[in-house]
Amino acid sequence: MDNKIFTLEKLSEILNIKYYGNPDLIISGISEIKNAKKNQLAFLFEKKYLKDIDKTNASCLLVNIDFEIDDKFSYLVSDKPKFIMTKILEIFNFKYNNFKGIHHLANISNNVLFGENVSVNSFVHIGQNVKIGKNVTIMSGSFIGDNSTIDDETLIYPNVTILANCIIGKKVIIHSGVVIGSDGYGFIQLDNNEHHKVPQIGNVIIEDNVEIGASVTIDRATIGSTIICEGTKIDNMVHIAHNVKIGKRSLIIAQTGIAGSTIIGDNVIIAGQSGVSGHLEIGNNSIILSRSGVTKNFPEKSKISGFPARNHLDELKNISMINKIPQLIKEIEELKEIIKSQNLKN
Amino acid sequence: MDNKIFTLEKLSEILNIKYYGNPDLIISGISEIKNAKKNQLAFLFEKKYLKDIDKTNASCLLVNIDFEIDDKFSYLVSDKPKFIMTKILEIFNFKYNNFKGIHHLANISNNVLFGENVSVNSFVHIGQNVKIGKNVTIMSGSFIGDNSTIDDETLIYPNVTILANCIIGKKVIIHSGVVIGSDGYGFIQLDNNEHHKVPQIGNVIIEDNVEIGASVTIDRATIGSTIICEGTKIDNMVHIAHNVKIGKRSLIIAQTGIAGSTIIGDNVIIAGQSGVSGHLEIGNNSIILSRSGVTKNFPEKSKISGFPARNHLDELKNISMINKIPQLIKEIEELKEIIKSQNLKN
Amino acid sequence: MDNKIFTLEKLSEILNIKYYGNPDLIISGISEIKNAKKNQLAFLFEKKYLKDIDKTNASCLLVNIDFEIDDKFSYLVSDKPKFIMTKILEIFNFKYNNFKGIHHLANISNNVLFGENVSVNSFVHIGQNVKIGKNVTIMSGSFIGDNSTIDDETLIYPNVTILANCIIGKKVIIHSGVVIGSDGYGFIQLDNNEHHKVPQIGNVIIEDNVEIGASVTIDRATIGSTIICEGTKIDNMVHIAHNVKIGKRSLIIAQTGIAGSTIIGDNVIIAGQSGVSGHLEIGNNSIILSRSGVTKNFPEKSKISGFPARNHLDELKNISMINKIPQLIKEIEELKEIIKSQNLKN
Repeated sequence: MDNKIFTLEKLSEILNIKYYGNPDLIISGISEIKNAKKNQLAFLFEKKYLKDIDKTNASCLLVNIDFEIDDKFSYLVSDKPKFIMTKILEIFNFKYNNFKGIHHLANISNNVLFGENVSVNSFVHIGQNVKIGKNVTIMSGSFIGDNSTIDDETLIYPNVTILANCIIGKKVIIHSGVVIGSDGYGFIQLDNNEHHKVPQIGNVIIEDNVEIGASVTIDRATIGSTIICEGTKIDNMVHIAHNVKIGKRSLIIAQTGIAGSTIIGDNVIIAGQSGVSGHLEIGNNSIILSRSGVTKNFPEKSKISGFPARNHLDELKNISMINKIPQLIKEIEELKEIIKSQNLKN
Repeated sequence: MDNKIFTLEKLSEILNIKYYGNPDLIISGISEIKNAKKNQLAFLFEKKYLKDIDKTNASCLLVNIDFEIDDKFSYLVSDKPKFIMTKILEIFNFKYNNFKGIHHLANISNNVLFGENVSVNSFVHIGQNVKIGKNVTIMSGSFIGDNSTIDDETLIYPNVTILANCIIGKKVIIHSGVVIGSDGYGFIQLDNNEHHKVPQIGNVIIEDNVEIGASVTIDRATIGSTIICEGTKIDNMVHIAHNVKIGKRSLIIAQTGIAGSTIIGDNVIIAGQSGVSGHLEIGNNSIILSRSGVTKNFPEKSKISGFPARNHLDELKNISMINKIPQLIKEIEELKEIIKSQNLKN
Repeated sequence: MDNKIFTLEKLSEILNIKYYGNPDLIISGISEIKNAKKNQLAFLFEKKYLKDIDKTNASCLLVNIDFEIDDKFSYLVSDKPKFIMTKILEIFNFKYNNFKGIHHLANISNNVLFGENVSVNSFVHIGQNVKIGKNVTIMSGSFIGDNSTIDDETLIYPNVTILANCIIGKKVIIHSGVVIGSDGYGFIQLDNNEHHKVPQIGNVIIEDNVEIGASVTIDRATIGSTIICEGTKIDNMVHIAHNVKIGKRSLIIAQTGIAGSTIIGDNVIIAGQSGVSGHLEIGNNSIILSRSGVTKNFPEKSKISGFPARNHLDELKNISMINKIPQLIKEIEELKEIIKSQNLKN
C-alpha cells in the first residue's frame, strides 16, 4: 500500500482547518478510535465513540468545534467534521488500477471512440460504436455492449456488465457484479400456457453522479428507457425492473426490489429489503422504512412502513393493537365474571 | 443502432393483419405512446394508456379489433394485439453480437464439440468435453465448465458462469451474472462445532425454452440434479438451492428464494421476494403472492400469501382481524359502562 | 466424467468401516435411493427415505449401525453415517480444473508472489503486490486486486471479484459471482441535498475455512476491516455491509442482509431472507429464524423471529393472539346479548 505521511501542520493547511498541539506531529494513517495507534488520526464527533477516548492510542483527533480540547492529544478542529472526514479519507485513500491506456488483452470492436486518458484493462470487451469519455476507467473483465456510451470520469469496477444501447453519465461509479441492460421480465401467455417472450428493445440511462453498488441489476425498458436520475445512490443487490424511473438524489438501500414501470421521486429513501410493486408512483422526499412492501401510490413526503405499506404512524398503531389483545381477553373475562355475579344476585 | 424502416402496408403484410390509413406511411420506430414522435408506431390496447392519446405524436397505433378507428392516426388492427406487439418488437429489436465463430481470445479446452454456426466471443472459457449445439451464442466473459452441454439455439449473455457437468437445453436464454452449478449449501456439524462440508457432486439441468434473469444462482444437487423444467421463466436475483425441482412453464419473480429439495409444480407463479422452505411440495397451477414465506406443502391450485403462508382468503381475514381491535376496545368500554350503570341502578 | 470403481471390500477398507455382503461387489457410483441403479451405493440413515427401500435398485446401502441388516442388499455400516457419507462423496466427487500453473491468458501484474503448485487459469487478473499461497486455485475470469493476499489451499471459482487490500485465509472456498471489497455504502448529505461519498479505505478479512456462496457481496470497511471469522459458512446472495464482523463457525443462510458495523457472534445461525440492522450485537450461539428483521441487540443463546424480531416464544404468542380475535368478537356479542336480556328483565 501507499505510504502517506503528513505533519499535523501540513494536514491542517491542506484541509484549511485549525489544529491544536504539536505542528510537527507525524500523521501516517487513519484508524477507528478504538484501534488507533501512535501517529494515527482518529475521528471523534459522534458521541457513541466518546467511551473509547481513554483507550485510544491515537496521536491526533478530528473533533467538532465545540469539543473540549485538552493536551492529551493533538487536534484537528472543524465546524463540519463529517465533511472534513471525507476529505481526510480521500487523502489517505488507496488508488486502484494505475494502469493507463488500452490493455493489449482488451477486446475492442469496430468504431469505438475513446476520450483522453482512459484506462481500459485486461479482458474488457467493448462492443462496436461505443463512446468512452475522458478519464474513464474500466477495470478488468467488464463488458460494454454495442452502441453504449460511458461519459467522462466514470469508474467501472471489475466484472461489470453493461449491455447494448445503454447511456452512462459522468462521474458514475459502478461496482463489481452489476448488470445494466439485462432484459426486462416480460411474457405473454399463449393459449397453450406457454410464456411467449416480449422483446425488450429499450435501454437503461444512468445519469451523472450516480453510484451503483455491487451485484445490482437494472433491466432495460421494453420500449423507451429505465432511468436512474442524477445523484442517486444505490446499495448492493438492488433489483430495478424495466421502465422504472428513480428520481434525483434518492437512496435505495440493499436488497430492495422495484417492480416494472414504477416511478420513484427525488430525494426518496427506500430502506433495505423493501419491495415496491409495479406501475406505482412514490412522491418526492418520501421515506420507505426497511422491509416495507409497497402496493399503492404515496404522495410526496410520505413516511411509510409495513406490508402492505401504509403511513408509518398507522402501521405503528396497528402493531400496537396486537399487543392489546391479552388485555382485551382479560377484560372480557372480568366482564363475564361481573355479569355472572350479577345474575346470581338477581 | 440499426435503422429499420417500413411502410404501413408492408408492415401489415409482414404481420398478416389489417391496417387503416395511408399505405405509404413510413414507420421508422416504436415508442411508448406518451413519448412517440412522428413516423413512430405506438401500442394502445391497455385502457391505462387511453389518457395519452391526445398528447401522442405517434403516426400509427396498434389497436384491438374493437377500437373505434378515426382518421387522426393510421392503424394496425388485430384481435390479438399483445401477441402482434411481440412480433413488432421482434422486428424492431436490435441484434446483439454479430460475431460468428470462435474468438481468438476465447480459451477452448480439449475435446470440445461445436455445432454449426456458433458464436463464442472473447474471454469465454470452455472446459474439456463440453458439447455446444448449433446456433449457440456465448457472449464475452462467460464460463462453461468441464463436461457441460449447451443445446441448440441457446443464448448466453456476458459474464455468465455455468460450472461442470451441467446440462442446458435448447432455446434457453441466460442473462448476465447468472451462476449455474455452484455448490449447494450442505454441512454436517462435527463434535467440535466445526461445519464439515458435504461435497456436492450432482449437477443442474435446465430444460428447453427456460429463461433465467440476471444474477440468478442455481446450486448443483448434492446427488442427482437440480432441475428447471421446460418453459419456466425466472426473473432476476432468484436463489434456487440444491435438489430443487421447478416444473414446466412456471414463473418465479425477482428476489425469491427456494430452499433445498423443494418441488414446485407446473404453471406455478411465485411472486417477488417470496421464500419457500426446504423439502416442500407446491402443487401445479398454484399462485404464491409476493413476499410470502411458505413453510408447508400446498396442493394444486392453491392461492397463498403471508408468512407463514396460508390460503390467501384466510390471510386477508387474518389481516382484517387486526383492524377490528379498535372496535373491540370500544365495545368493551361500552359494556363496562352499561354494567357499571346497571350496578348503580341495582 | 471420471469413472471411479471400487469393490465393496476396497471401499470399506478406504473408509475404515464394516461391510456386509459380497466383498467383490462392484460399486461404480452414488445415487439418491429412489433413483439408484445396479452397482450404485445409496444412503439410508434418514427415516424419510425408508419408504424408498422397496423401490430402489441400489446394490449397496450405507446405513447406521442399528439398521436391521438383511440379504437383499450389501451394506456399509457406521455409527457416524453422515460423516462417512461426506467421505464417500469426496471419493466420488468430480475434480474441477486440472490445469496447473499460470495460464498464458492470465494477466499478472508486477511483484506478485506465487506459492507452490498454484493454478491460475485464463482471464484471471492479479494486481500488483498480491501474494498467492501454495495449492491455491483461481479459476477463469476471477479478479484479485492490488495488495491482496490469498492463503494456502484456497479455492476461488470462476468470475469472482476480490478487490484491493483484502486478506483471504487458508482453505477458503469462494463461489462464482462473489464480490469481496466493494465500497461500503457511505454518504454524507450536503446542504444542497447532494450525497457526498465517504471514501471507503478499509478492507475485508476472510479467515481460514470460510465458505462463501455464489453472488455474495462483502463490502470493505470505511476504516479498519469487515471480518468473517474462521469456519463461518455463508450461503448464496448474502449481503454483508461495511465494518460488519461475523464470528466463528456461524451459518448465514441465503438472501440475508447484515447492515453496517453490526457484530454477529460465534456459532450463530441466521436463517434465510433475514435482515439485521446496523450497529447491533447478536450474542454467541444465537438463532435468528428465517425472514426475521432484527432491530436491536440480543444476548447470547437468543432464539428470535419476526419483524421487529423478538424472543421466538413471544413472537409465537403474538401471532396466536391474532387468531383469538374472532373468539373475542363472539364473546363480546354474547355479553351484549346477556346484558340486553338482563336489561329487558330489569
